[in-house]
Amino acid sequence: MSSFTAELLGTMILILFGDGVVAGVLLNKSKSQNSGWIVITTAWAIGVAIPAFIFGGISGAHLNPALTIALAVIGKFSWSQVPGYIIAQFLGAMIGATLVWLAYLPHWAETEDKSAKLGIFCTGPAIRNLPANFLTEVIATFILVFTVLGIGIPKAADGISPLVVGLLILALGLAYGGPTGYAMNPARDLGPRIAHAILPIAGKGDSDWGYSWVPVVAPIVGALIGALLFNIVF
Amino acid sequence: MSSFTAELLGTMILILFGDGVVAGVLLNKSKSQNSGWIVITTAWAIGVAIPAFIFGGISGAHLNPALTIALAVIGKFSWSQVPGYIIAQFLGAMIGATLVWLAYLPHWAETEDKSAKLGIFCTGPAIRNLPANFLTEVIATFILVFTVLGIGIPKAADGISPLVVGLLILALGLAYGGPTGYAMNPARDLGPRIAHAILPIAGKGDSDWGYSWVPVVAPIVGALIGALLFNIVF
Amino acid sequence: MSSFTAELLGTMILILFGDGVVAGVLLNKSKSQNSGWIVITTAWAIGVAIPAFIFGGISGAHLNPALTIALAVIGKFSWSQVPGYIIAQFLGAMIGATLVWLAYLPHWAETEDKSAKLGIFCTGPAIRNLPANFLTEVIATFILVFTVLGIGIPKAADGISPLVVGLLILALGLAYGGPTGYAMNPARDLGPRIAHAILPIAGKGDSDWGYSWVPVVAPIVGALIGALLFNIVF
Amino acid sequence: MSSFTAELLGTMILILFGDGVVAGVLLNKSKSQNSGWIVITTAWAIGVAIPAFIFGGISGAHLNPALTIALAVIGKFSWSQVPGYIIAQFLGAMIGATLVWLAYLPHWAETEDKSAKLGIFCTGPAIRNLPANFLTEVIATFILVFTVLGIGIPKAADGISPLVVGLLILALGLAYGGPTGYAMNPARDLGPRIAHAILPIAGKGDSDWGYSWVPVVAPIVGALIGALLFNIVF
Repeated sequence: MSSFTAELLGTMILILFGDGVVAGVLLNKSKSQNSGWIVITTAWAIGVAIPAFIFGGISGAHLNPALTIALAVIGKFSWSQVPGYIIAQFLGAMIGATLVWLAYLPHWAETEDKSAKLGIFCTGPAIRNLPANFLTEVIATFILVFTVLGIGIPKAADGISPLVVGLLILALGLAYGGPTGYAMNPARDLGPRIAHAILPIAGKGDSDWGYSWVPVVAPIVGALIGALLFNIVF
Repeated sequence: MSSFTAELLGTMILILFGDGVVAGVLLNKSKSQNSGWIVITTAWAIGVAIPAFIFGGISGAHLNPALTIALAVIGKFSWSQVPGYIIAQFLGAMIGATLVWLAYLPHWAETEDKSAKLGIFCTGPAIRNLPANFLTEVIATFILVFTVLGIGIPKAADGISPLVVGLLILALGLAYGGPTGYAMNPARDLGPRIAHAILPIAGKGDSDWGYSWVPVVAPIVGALIGALLFNIVF
Repeated sequence: MSSFTAELLGTMILILFGDGVVAGVLLNKSKSQNSGWIVITTAWAIGVAIPAFIFGGISGAHLNPALTIALAVIGKFSWSQVPGYIIAQFLGAMIGATLVWLAYLPHWAETEDKSAKLGIFCTGPAIRNLPANFLTEVIATFILVFTVLGIGIPKAADGISPLVVGLLILALGLAYGGPTGYAMNPARDLGPRIAHAILPIAGKGDSDWGYSWVPVVAPIVGALIGALLFNIVF
Repeated sequence: MSSFTAELLGTMILILFGDGVVAGVLLNKSKSQNSGWIVITTAWAIGVAIPAFIFGGISGAHLNPALTIALAVIGKFSWSQVPGYIIAQFLGAMIGATLVWLAYLPHWAETEDKSAKLGIFCTGPAIRNLPANFLTEVIATFILVFTVLGIGIPKAADGISPLVVGLLILALGLAYGGPTGYAMNPARDLGPRIAHAILPIAGKGDSDWGYSWVPVVAPIVGALIGALLFNIVF
């Protein structure tokens, strides 16, 4: 398998679990409706851990353009592979979002709330304040990238590092999902947002393009800070 | 131990935990009544992980005719063993369901809701729309089988692969339980449905045979797609 | 360290986490009041896993007279050690329960419900029907002992078997706590019940001695069935 | 990396996850508001496990002056390093708390409750009774330190001991968070309390200095008892 295929399938699985769980929690008549924050964050965490197990040895399972770019900046990843990785991540995210739409097909028409339907695909701020929202995403992605790189250091975590990264994603969701929904990943957010704009979702609203750049740019900034701090201290 | 015994006991344990937790959440006067989706999905996940630990080395711990058939189709399992595995899985599921009924014996008469009582044994759709319900079960089982096969690839996951498969089942329940209750397994659904029809459950209703073919046929279709995609990309 | 000390300290830790979490969930003004079934079952599960890690290599970390007796019956444990183990388990459980009472000292007087206060120390039936309650405890302990012995079989689980046993306890609580509160262990139930009778707990009621034999005798019966089935099939 | 840097960054990560999750649960308009005790305790647990993975091999990942002092008392840590460790832990905690304040920046003004805002930074008693609160923190920290030292004994837990310690923190939160919020760590409590006093938090109240000595002194007492008991029995 090429690393292109690995990143595409890995990001597809991430979105299948991540957007899938939000669909289950937000859509009317779903058996898991309103089942809470621990449900959402656990599925996103496993959505990272499972591809990390399967594809980690093939592509490194970045699943995230911010991580791919940050690794290239600190010299741990070849710039020539960056465009291919990012394209694969976006394609995977869009395919995943489309399958989520299909899996919940009769539920979209049963749900009035247009912003809930958008919230299944991509993130939005709890309090719309773009500089503050930007800062939140920078801090969350800084923690993500600094700790992901740190987890790669000790030999002890070798066999179980995908589990440890899953726990990290869980804790990030628990602690930093509150203000902006913890995008931390341009492909995870913009890919499904594009799918939301394209797909014939019953009773959908607009795709909130005014906010869409925040969860693209801020995670890249945060990832760079995290990777550079890692490079300094380790 | 024969692999027949392993599949029978493994599927029995799966249903003991899976149907057992739903009984606790749905039956009146249970101490765990209404304890939520994370409770249900966690017990089903451990219900797969524990038999995978105990019986994985003996029979592979399929516990699921859809997986058994899909493995045979891609040449990873002998067709001659398929009938025995499926019979064992159905027997185990029916014995497990019977023990769940006994463990909650005084609670059935205290519970009015006939469809809740059926829902302890087998799945049903949140919105009855058989083509859509079929599609949901196909997608969920596709993810299950593609990722289960993928988890078998890396050496790193060797010792803990039953845990990783448990996490996968947890995420599938969190993300895809909403529309149809995530059967993904003909024996898990039809076996206890037959037990529901046979057992003298206090105040039970009908066994919804009109829906019963969906969680049998759709998981087989989804498993085949997952196994074939796995064969193509890996 | 002697195995007597190991069983005493291990069972003390089990009760410190198990009775402690129920105190937090049931007592008035506790920050964790009404925090749900997943909270209770997770703490009990870790309450088994942690002593299994620490003391497993010393005493086997039985922590449970029903398991100790069943292991002796199938020839996996010396009868001469049985009395010492059981005494240690009861002493540990009573010390643990006493420390729980002290840790929540100002909360007992703030709580009216006498049966909640008893429920922190020991189990009680959701529907009082002693033959049915007995059967529930037999089934739950049968699953416990059969699977605990099975988890000991594969080499794969060696390093992480305490974690797997913790997951097993979690699933048992999720799936079988509903009808009787899943005692499955004479020392876990009768030890703290004796502590409840002795300690000067503010506004306590009676210790429900009429039920007290069920979570002592039924777990022993269930453990024997589990151990004998294990001996037959493996 | 020096062990000073490791303790500073490790304690910063602990507080980033720990204080972060409480901010998400308590602040108005947060997407994770009121998401429950399992959310809070899980993030704190991972907040210990992740630094233990990353920094365990460098500094031992104490992250806690009570543990550092107790280890020195029983001769497992050099007294000459104690002051540096404690300074690093306090600095890390204060930096972490400051980043939490920034990540939730627009939410502070939206939240009336001054004691909730303080509760994000440091602990407080459910029932104000200083001797009893002191006793609770002693018991919780005794369990923490005795079991953390015990987990270090068996070879089996070597690779996964950070996970086991994380489970221990989870269980301590579940079972002993009720009365006092389970500080168990002077740096975790006093560091962010100082940050609360200094930072220009919108609509903040006082920093409850009258209680502040309890979660500093009691954890040290509990840690000493735990370490001394460990020394006696192992």
